Amino acid sequence: MTVRTRPLGAFALIVAAGAAGAQTPAPATLPAEVQQTVERLIAAGLADRNGYAIIEDLVTRVGPRPAGTPAEGRAREWAADMLRKQGFSDVRVEPFTTTSWQASRETAQITAPFAQPLVIAALGGSPATPASGVTGEVVRFTSLGALRAAAPAAVRDRIVFIDEVMVRAQDGAGYGAATVKRRGCGSTARTLAARACLIRSAGTNTDRFAHQGWGASTAPETQVPSAALAPPDADTLARAVARSAGPVSVRIDIQTQYSTTAPSGNVLAEVRGRDQADQIVLAAAHLDSWSLGQGALDDGAGVAIITAAAKLVNDLPRKPRRSIRVLLAGSEEVVGSDSGGNAYRDAHRNEMHVVAAESDVGDGRVWRLRSRAAGGALPQLRLLQRALAPLGVLPGDNGPTVGGGSDIGPLVATGVPLLALNQDASRYFDVHHTANDTLERVHLADLQQNIAVWAVTLYLMAEMDWDLRQAVDRR
Amino acid sequence: MTVRTRPLGAFALIVAAGAAGAQTPAPATLPAEVQQTVERLIAAGLADRNGYAIIEDLVTRVGPRPAGTPAEGRAREWAADMLRKQGFSDVRVEPFTTTSWQASRETAQITAPFAQPLVIAALGGSPATPASGVTGEVVRFTSLGALRAAAPAAVRDRIVFIDEVMVRAQDGAGYGAATVKRRGCGSTARTLAARACLIRSAGTNTDRFAHQGWGASTAPETQVPSAALAPPDADTLARAVARSAGPVSVRIDIQTQYSTTAPSGNVLAEVRGRDQADQIVLAAAHLDSWSLGQGALDDGAGVAIITAAAKLVNDLPRKPRRSIRVLLAGSEEVVGSDSGGNAYRDAHRNEMHVVAAESDVGDGRVWRLRSRAAGGALPQLRLLQRALAPLGVLPGDNGPTVGGGSDIGPLVATGVPLLALNQDASRYFDVHHTANDTLERVHLADLQQNIAVWAVTLYLMAEMDWDLRQAVDRR
Repeated sequence: MTVRTRPLGAFALIVAAGAAGAQTPAPATLPAEVQQTVERLIAAGLADRNGYAIIEDLVTRVGPRPAGTPAEGRAREWAADMLRKQGFSDVRVEPFTTTSWQASRETAQITAPFAQPLVIAALGGSPATPASGVTGEVVRFTSLGALRAAAPAAVRDRIVFIDEVMVRAQDGAGYGAATVKRRGCGSTARTLAARACLIRSAGTNTDRFAHQGWGASTAPETQVPSAALAPPDADTLARAVARSAGPVSVRIDIQTQYSTTAPSGNVLAEVRGRDQADQIVLAAAHLDSWSLGQGALDDGAGVAIITAAAKLVNDLPRKPRRSIRVLLAGSEEVVGSDSGGNAYRDAHRNEMHVVAAESDVGDGRVWRLRSRAAGGALPQLRLLQRALAPLGVLPGDNGPTVGGGSDIGPLVATGVPLLALNQDASRYFDVHHTANDTLERVHLADLQQNIAVWAVTLYLMAEMDWDLRQAVDRR
Repeated sequence: MTVRTRPLGAFALIVAAGAAGAQTPAPATLPAEVQQTVERLIAAGLADRNGYAIIEDLVTRVGPRPAGTPAEGRAREWAADMLRKQGFSDVRVEPFTTTSWQASRETAQITAPFAQPLVIAALGGSPATPASGVTGEVVRFTSLGALRAAAPAAVRDRIVFIDEVMVRAQDGAGYGAATVKRRGCGSTARTLAARACLIRSAGTNTDRFAHQGWGASTAPETQVPSAALAPPDADTLARAVARSAGPVSVRIDIQTQYSTTAPSGNVLAEVRGRDQADQIVLAAAHLDSWSLGQGALDDGAGVAIITAAAKLVNDLPRKPRRSIRVLLAGSEEVVGSDSGGNAYRDAHRNEMHVVAAESDVGDGRVWRLRSRAAGGALPQLRLLQRALAPLGVLPGDNGPTVGGGSDIGPLVATGVPLLALNQDASRYFDVHHTANDTLERVHLADLQQNIAVWAVTLYLMAEMDWDLRQAVDRR
C-alpha cells in the first residue's frame, strides 16, 4: 500500500524531480564507508547507556540549577569535569553576566467564601508582594485579549485570573500560544491597576504541579505580582467563582530575590576535525533549569543527548573532517538579552559555523527533520533525512521561519544554517518547568533514539563536505 | 472453556452442594419484583451524575478538611446541608473530641555534599524540629527491621532513612506492609537516639508527591521528627548516599500544631425502613482528609458513593423494609481511639445493626464481595454476589478476619456482620494522601460502577429478611 502524504514543500519537489529522472545535484546515496559508519552509530546510539547516566549524575550531584545561582555555577563545574572525562578536547567555561530571579516563598489561598490553599508557582521576574501578602477579589478572564478588552473599573484593585487552557500538540505549538498570557498578564494587569495576576499553568498536565516560567520581560517594577496556578487549582478557582453568589477572594504571598548582575557561563567542548577543524558543527543544549524540579528533562536530557552523541562520533576510529562543538549554555530560562545564546553569539560569531542544532524538548523522540538552509542544500538534507528514516524521522520543510531554540537562535539570526531535529512534544509539557521534572520521567528508549539521531546527524554534517550556508534566506 | 480458580472457602462448598442437587437453605433466585428493582438500580447507578457532583461540591466549597480543624467543621455543615437536600431523614451531627495534628511547615534539603531541596510530608503526630531545623548525617536502611537490628553507634545522632518500596497490589495489601515503617520509624529512631526519621513515601507513584499519613500512635514526645520523602526524592537521596565518598547530610524543618481536645463529629442520615425501621443497614465513609490534597478520592469518593447509592434506594417508589443509615464519619485519619468509628460505636452499639459496610478506596471499581457473617448466611451472600456479577463483582471468602475499614471497625468488633465491597486499589495509592488527590483524578465511570454496586447492596440488605448475624465468629 502506498500512503501519500501532503507534499512537504521543497523536499517534495526534489523527490519528484528524482522520480522524473531529471538532473539531481547530489549523489543519491552516501558513500559505502560513510553508510557503514551511520549504521554503526545507529546501533551504538540505540544501545547507549552513557546519556542516561549523564542525567542521573547531574540530577544527583547538582539538582535544580537556576540561572545566576551558585547551583548553576556547580552545574558548570560538573559539566566541565564530565566533558573532560568523556574525552572531548578544549573543554572550557566562558563566563557572562545574567539576570537572576528566585522565589523564596510562593503561596496562595482562597480566603472567601470557600477557604482553601492553592498550589502556585511565581512567574519569573515577578515582583514580590508585601510581606503580609496581597488579598483581592478575583476577576476571571479566558484570555489575555479578554483582559485587555476589560473595562478598567472591572479590574482595578482586583486579582486578575486568566484561565486559558494549553493545547496538547506533537510539535509543541500549544506552548507558544499558552505563554502569551504568561508574558502579558503581569504588565497588563499593572496597567489596569489590578493587585496581582494569576494564570492557569502553561502546561498540559492535570496533576497538581504548577508550571514555572518567565513572565513579562520588563523589570519587576513594571508588573504586578504574578503566579501560575496548578491546573487542578485553576479548576477549583474557576468552580469557586462559578458557585459563589458573591465575590471570591484570594491571598497571594510571593517573596523574591532579583539581580541583573549575576554570574552565569557557557561550557564548551570540541571534537577536533581531522582536516577542516575550523569548520564547526554546533550542537547545543542548556545547563540551567527552573528551581522546583531537577531539570532532568529540561534540559538534562538535551545535555545528555548531544554529549552522548558527540562522544559516539569522537570515539570513531577516525575523527570526522570538520569539528563538532558541544555548547552547554547557561541562563537559557531567562527571557532577555543576557542568555547563554547571546553570549555565545557575541564571542563566536566570527568563526565558521557550518550548521547549528539544539536539543531542548526532553526525551521526546525525533520525528521530523526541518531546516533553515540554502535551497541548494536540499538534496544533502534529503540524504540526511534518509539516513535518519530507520529511526522514525520524517522529512519536514526548509525555510527562513524554521526555529531551533534559544541557545542557537542568536547565532542563527546572523545567517548560520539550522537543523531542527523536531522532538515529539506530546508528553513534554506535562512535566516541563514543574517539580515533577525528575529522573523518573526519563524514558531510556526515547533518549536512545535521540542519541542515535544526533550521532548520525553530527557525523554526517562533520564528515561530508555539505554546504548549507549558501544563499541563506534571512527574511 | 472452563476456568477453574482456587476454591473460595465456604462459597465453593455452597456451589458444589447446589450442583450436586443437595438441599439448599435459601431460594436460588431473588423474587421477580426484587430482581426488577435490582436491574433498575444498576441502570440508575451506571448513569448517575449525583455522586460526581457531590465530590465536586465538597472539594470546591470545603477542600482539605483535616480532623479536628475548622475546615472539618465546615465539612460537617456542608454534609448535613447536602444530606438534607438529597432528601434523607433524621440528618444530624454527633460531636466528639479528637486528636488534631497539623504541620505549618515541612521542608528538607540535602546540605552536603550535593545540596538540593527534597520534597517531604511530615508524618501525622510527628514532633516539631527546633525552629532552625535539625541537620544530621543520613544512614540508610531498607526496612524497619534493618533499623531495629542496627548497631546503636551507627544510628546515634544521625538521620535515619528507611528506603523501602511499596508494592502495587489490587487488594491494597502493599499498603499495610508499607506503613510498618511509617508507624515504627519515629519511635524506633528515638530509642536509638537518632535525630530524625525519613521514610520513602507509603505510595506507589513515581511522580513527585510525598504521602501524608499518621506515624507512631504514641505522643509526639516519644518520637523524633519524622517525614515521608516523595518517591523521586527518596531515589535522589539513595543515589546521593551511593555516590558520595563521605557522609551525606540533610536538614529537616518541621513545625506543627498538636491538640488532644479538638472538636470533630459524625454526620448521620437515614432512609427510614417501611416496616422494620429499627433494623439498620449501615453505610459508612469519612468526611475528614489530609491537608495537602483536596480529599477527592480519600474519601470524597466514598461520601459520594454511599450517599448517591442510598439516595437511589430512597427514591424508589416504595422504601425498603429496613432502614439504611448513612454515616459520614469524622476523624478517620487519626490513629488512635478518638476516631469517628469509635464515637459511633459508643453512641449506637445498642441499636440493631443487621450489617455494616464502608467505602474508602476512592473510585476503584468493586471487584469482589467478601464478608464477615454467620456461615448460615452464605446462600444469601451468594444471591447478593450474583446480583452484583453483571457489574463485575467476583465472590470472595467469608470469615472472621475479613476487614472493612476504620469507620465501622469498632462496631464490627462488637459482633455486627460486615460486607466488604472490595475496590480495585491498583491505582489508588498513586494519589492517596498526596497533594494530587483532586477532582481531576476521579473517573466518572468507575464512580458510577461503585454507586450501582452499593445501591443494589443497600437495597437487598434492607429489603430482604436476610440475617447475617447468627453465629458470627468473633475469633
